[in-house]
Amino acid sequence: MIDDQYYMHRALELARRGAGLTSPNPMVGAVIVKGGKIIGEGWHEKFGEAHAEVNAVKKAVAPVSGATIYVTLEPCSYHGKTPACAPMLVREAFRRVVIAVRDPNPKVSGAGIEILKQNGIEVTEGIESKLARQLNQPFFKAMQVSLPYLIHKSAVTIDAFIADSQGQSKWISCEESRRTVHQLRAEADAVLVGVNTVLADDPELTVRLIQGRNPKRIIADPNCRTPFNAKMVQTASEAETFIISREKSWRHSPLKNSPLIPLLFEGEMIPWDEMLKTILQQGIQSILVEGGAILQSSLIAAGHLDRLELFISPKSIGKGHRMMQFLEKKMGEADAGIHNTWKVSGEDAHLSSTYRVY
Amino acid sequence: MIDDQYYMHRALELARRGAGLTSPNPMVGAVIVKGGKIIGEGWHEKFGEAHAEVNAVKKAVAPVSGATIYVTLEPCSYHGKTPACAPMLVREAFRRVVIAVRDPNPKVSGAGIEILKQNGIEVTEGIESKLARQLNQPFFKAMQVSLPYLIHKSAVTIDAFIADSQGQSKWISCEESRRTVHQLRAEADAVLVGVNTVLADDPELTVRLIQGRNPKRIIADPNCRTPFNAKMVQTASEAETFIISREKSWRHSPLKNSPLIPLLFEGEMIPWDEMLKTILQQGIQSILVEGGAILQSSLIAAGHLDRLELFISPKSIGKGHRMMQFLEKKMGEADAGIHNTWKVSGEDAHLSSTYRVY
Repeated sequence: MIDDQYYMHRALELARRGAGLTSPNPMVGAVIVKGGKIIGEGWHEKFGEAHAEVNAVKKAVAPVSGATIYVTLEPCSYHGKTPACAPMLVREAFRRVVIAVRDPNPKVSGAGIEILKQNGIEVTEGIESKLARQLNQPFFKAMQVSLPYLIHKSAVTIDAFIADSQGQSKWISCEESRRTVHQLRAEADAVLVGVNTVLADDPELTVRLIQGRNPKRIIADPNCRTPFNAKMVQTASEAETFIISREKSWRHSPLKNSPLIPLLFEGEMIPWDEMLKTILQQGIQSILVEGGAILQSSLIAAGHLDRLELFISPKSIGKGHRMMQFLEKKMGEADAGIHNTWKVSGEDAHLSSTYRVY
Repeated sequence: MIDDQYYMHRALELARRGAGLTSPNPMVGAVIVKGGKIIGEGWHEKFGEAHAEVNAVKKAVAPVSGATIYVTLEPCSYHGKTPACAPMLVREAFRRVVIAVRDPNPKVSGAGIEILKQNGIEVTEGIESKLARQLNQPFFKAMQVSLPYLIHKSAVTIDAFIADSQGQSKWISCEESRRTVHQLRAEADAVLVGVNTVLADDPELTVRLIQGRNPKRIIADPNCRTPFNAKMVQTASEAETFIISREKSWRHSPLKNSPLIPLLFEGEMIPWDEMLKTILQQGIQSILVEGGAILQSSLIAAGHLDRLELFISPKSIGKGHRMMQFLEKKMGEADAGIHNTWKVSGEDAHLSSTYRVY
């Protein structure tokens, strides 16, 4: 059991190397062990490419027949973009397969394990399943409730302002914190902002302070107020950029001639449940909501807060634009994350709070 | 020099043992070194009792003549509650005296050093002077500007509320944070609260969660609204308790028959400069301002914020009573402490910000 945990930790570590590159597939890692030695390692490196098991077998430095393979997710039973992994493990004559967690997709969950067992392979399930689920929360959420996973990010002063009275927010947080935000962007499928943020800051929402790929971008803009010359419109042909708009506003908007991809709704308010389902269908499993406060407050009011990434700078400004509004509670029933982790981030404090677990 | 720093650090460590017990005297530590060995250690243990140098000499395990003594503050030149230390060091035939920092009292500063030098003792000044000043900021402030040192304490949710809409504040912060607050109380000469806090929470402001002495207490209550049966009134004969009141309100108040000590003013607003000078004359050099927000905001507006001790709980309540209001600033000119230290305190983050250095 201790050995199983040890090798599974290694497989989880390998899986993480795919962060930001595998979606809408999950991150998966695999470790092949024979005679007490690791003889092969692999991970799912990129969406559409080989699965972790295939990579580990390919890189094995000794014959894998009779070996044990540790995988962070149940091997697939079906031929998708790549051939099915469970039959491949049978063909390669593995003696034992150790699995952290079953595939959460109800259509295939357990099917890979069934193939292995029917072919006489010993299967151990549930080794570090909690960590394996944590690793792929957006994937698990998508499979369970068909909604993307929402991470709200905010940088605030100690008095909970995100901008001064003139709307200026540069720079609340220190460079170390801003680097962490770019890391979050590089790992999220998309970044979502409200139109007021576009008008105030004209952000690009790209990854610059670290190495990493750019996320897709979504602007919540019911009345199509985004200027045609906004940076996100101008760069929309390079990075897929969506705009959530009221149908009748979009119909007469000059933005129709831009590369923005419209996500349209009718009625007064953005119907978040419906809209988020549509966004998930675009292959977006995780969204980093970068503001502003009105957008974040409306998402929180609609129940869409899975994780909060809050950067608190030791500054005060007395007056200005307040941070997102949380649900009104009595002190004794205050909302809090299920897991809350504080870190010192340069000059700032960084709180990571997980509100929902899938 | 490295040796000098080493021994001075030890002397500073000893000095800290007097925390909360020496005021209005400073904390002072002393280490006697001879032949590369520490032969005596002492600190000022309590106001009115022996100074650090005397205690170190008393506890020396070998003759001190020819030795070096490290003291965190210039030895005194005058006979106060106890005999003067500088002449004592001369009598004991010390060879060298190493001093972290001069006495900030302009009436005596340098006089102790003069006595030592005139008697042929080698004097080294300025070893770890910054740390020695930090140790006794209230004492240095009192000597320099004749005002007490004000530490504002607050416990807030991530959305910067100190109480919910019903005024309930129990418990925002975790037990570890509350213990730290009790430590701050045990080291402050007095705790200051506004009358609204008395009416809402009826606090005792005593030290319970740790070992330590109770601070004096001050209620800012211009209109004498403190109820006669408030815990602080009922226990005022055990712990010295002051009330800042408008003279004409006090004249007709039943509180006149309580053990509360009145600090009276005329006019509309509390004249903080004058009032704080009066408080200093009562032997109170350091004040922990525990709230509420109105009191803290008015002190901040009047420029009385030396240090902030902020406990942020990873909770949100959406609406309620906001924390103290800081001065209005643009983001680019936001107020921040000169030194800011974040610590993880159980479930909370704890920010200690120093705004003024004396």
